[in-house]
Amino acid sequence: MTFLTGPLPVLPQTGAGRGGDTDGAPAVVALGGGHGLSASLSALRLLTTDLTAVVTVADDGGSSGRLRHELDVLPPGDLRMALAALCDDTDWGRTWRDVMQHRFQSRPGISGSLDNHALGNLLIVTLWELLGDPVAGLQWAGALLGARGQVLPMSTHPLTIEGDVLRRTAQGTRLEVVTGQARLAAAGVQSKVSEVRLSPADAPACAEALTAIERADWIILGPGSWYTSVLPHLMLPELRTALCKTKAKRCLTMNLSNETTETAGMSALDHLAEVRRYAPDLRVDAVLADPSVIEDQDAFAEAVAGMGGRPVFGKVGAATGRPIHDPLRLATAYHDMFGEN
Amino acid sequence: MTFLTGPLPVLPQTGAGRGGDTDGAPAVVALGGGHGLSASLSALRLLTTDLTAVVTVADDGGSSGRLRHELDVLPPGDLRMALAALCDDTDWGRTWRDVMQHRFQSRPGISGSLDNHALGNLLIVTLWELLGDPVAGLQWAGALLGARGQVLPMSTHPLTIEGDVLRRTAQGTRLEVVTGQARLAAAGVQSKVSEVRLSPADAPACAEALTAIERADWIILGPGSWYTSVLPHLMLPELRTALCKTKAKRCLTMNLSNETTETAGMSALDHLAEVRRYAPDLRVDAVLADPSVIEDQDAFAEAVAGMGGRPVFGKVGAATGRPIHDPLRLATAYHDMFGEN
Repeated sequence: MTFLTGPLPVLPQTGAGRGGDTDGAPAVVALGGGHGLSASLSALRLLTTDLTAVVTVADDGGSSGRLRHELDVLPPGDLRMALAALCDDTDWGRTWRDVMQHRFQSRPGISGSLDNHALGNLLIVTLWELLGDPVAGLQWAGALLGARGQVLPMSTHPLTIEGDVLRRTAQGTRLEVVTGQARLAAAGVQSKVSEVRLSPADAPACAEALTAIERADWIILGPGSWYTSVLPHLMLPELRTALCKTKAKRCLTMNLSNETTETAGMSALDHLAEVRRYAPDLRVDAVLADPSVIEDQDAFAEAVAGMGGRPVFGKVGAATGRPIHDPLRLATAYHDMFGEN
Repeated sequence: MTFLTGPLPVLPQTGAGRGGDTDGAPAVVALGGGHGLSASLSALRLLTTDLTAVVTVADDGGSSGRLRHELDVLPPGDLRMALAALCDDTDWGRTWRDVMQHRFQSRPGISGSLDNHALGNLLIVTLWELLGDPVAGLQWAGALLGARGQVLPMSTHPLTIEGDVLRRTAQGTRLEVVTGQARLAAAGVQSKVSEVRLSPADAPACAEALTAIERADWIILGPGSWYTSVLPHLMLPELRTALCKTKAKRCLTMNLSNETTETAGMSALDHLAEVRRYAPDLRVDAVLADPSVIEDQDAFAEAVAGMGGRPVFGKVGAATGRPIHDPLRLATAYHDMFGEN
């Protein structure tokens, strides 16, 4: 095993981080995690190459959780998915994307230690261990994929997410503390999340993410699991401050279903209220929502106005009817929004 | 997980397999496994880009053995080492080589399922599972490294190596059957390997390897663990026939120490005798040996003449005195040999 001792190896230059796109496309920072961020990036990559993904690092379930426990590293899964969404649209980029997304499956009857590990998670961890720098490791993984843009962790410190959950039992409602993103996301419809915290509460944000936010033209927050992928970006003090201070325009993108296990019983207005609760000073320019999930458009517009912005209603869901954003429709909505503001 | 259903993705063209090198460098096929083959390739890559490594696939120890057991695949370890030896001499090639060679190390106290797995083994297995073709998978891994040449398995079927071992005990000498490369290689100095077999005995050879042997200018067999990395190539009927029939010149390269655990008590002449035993029809043009391991140069020359060739004596060991071939000295010896014949 060779550890680098000198300067980091020189990478071929990728799209983002060049300090301004030459063709006038906007510099965009998308924040989130999981499938929501993938959808966001799949749309935004069609509009600009000056694209930065800022990704939650609180996952503790599945392949990422096992790696975190066994090797004491950042959870790579959400970072891997973001990279995959940005892969170059060539045989090369698509093949290495498929390699990164590949999951091992042990033979039946074998208690498989590799079972369900994604190769990309192992590759990213290897780059981290070898280069000793989470951001450089992600740059190399991005270069392998020919990624359009860069992928950054919200913090280079692994975070733990913890929530107060109201659990309804036969004996009445009980307040429980649930630790860990996987357990919180699965808290279930019998419970209601009442408050979420990060531990440590004051971890430093990734410096490159702060820089990208400062120099961005547009910030896109969401869609994604509200408590475990979207709101964590507002809980990290340095990141919240940067998001509040940047001269960039800000767009909050709503989910296509309010009724996830995390957010059972919550309306679109409740989702907005949670954003205001965790970042009272955050002003938004636009809130993008599919009209199908807005119970009362007037009340929604009023709430958005209270955050400084205007609602943008658009059919951005997949034609299948499943609550998944369609990349082309979402790109069209962002394109119009970037042009109008 | 995406499985390819259409034609394989198109790869950037690498050095080997172009059907003749434009600068007149010889087409060379090197056969072996493990560290011996790595040494051979590190030297030969300095002399030609039309280079093919043909690698044993009988390993059942370590990371490879666990992968073979858990995922039912070819053992990737020796193939990975061969690829690493051929990596492009740039920041890109060296970084991905280091990534491929990186081994995970579990945190102390954690019973680590990833412990000691080489990332490159997992990457190669992923390419195999994704592309459904061992040769194409190795081509993609080679393209990642910018490898100079191609790496092929001797067979696309996993093989098992089995040996009869004479074990000296307090009660006398006992014949034991030892199954598995790892156990055979470790049989130890109290035992003597008397016969080695592959299972299945008649597995097909890799078609691309047969083609490379047919069109080669030079074949290099060895150095390497005699029973588990060198002789297996002569035990596979199709491969032995191709090696005997090719119009290429053939060089057998001796080890720098005759006294390995597999070959304890064997002289250089005994090593030659084992080659003749497993491939009586194999003619060689040259046998390259460091004079330090030849007990009787005249007797050695006579034995080599009996195989149709001439001995080539050269100081090819590392300056440290450890029994490791020095790439530059080995390259010099091959360069002279290729020019003279």
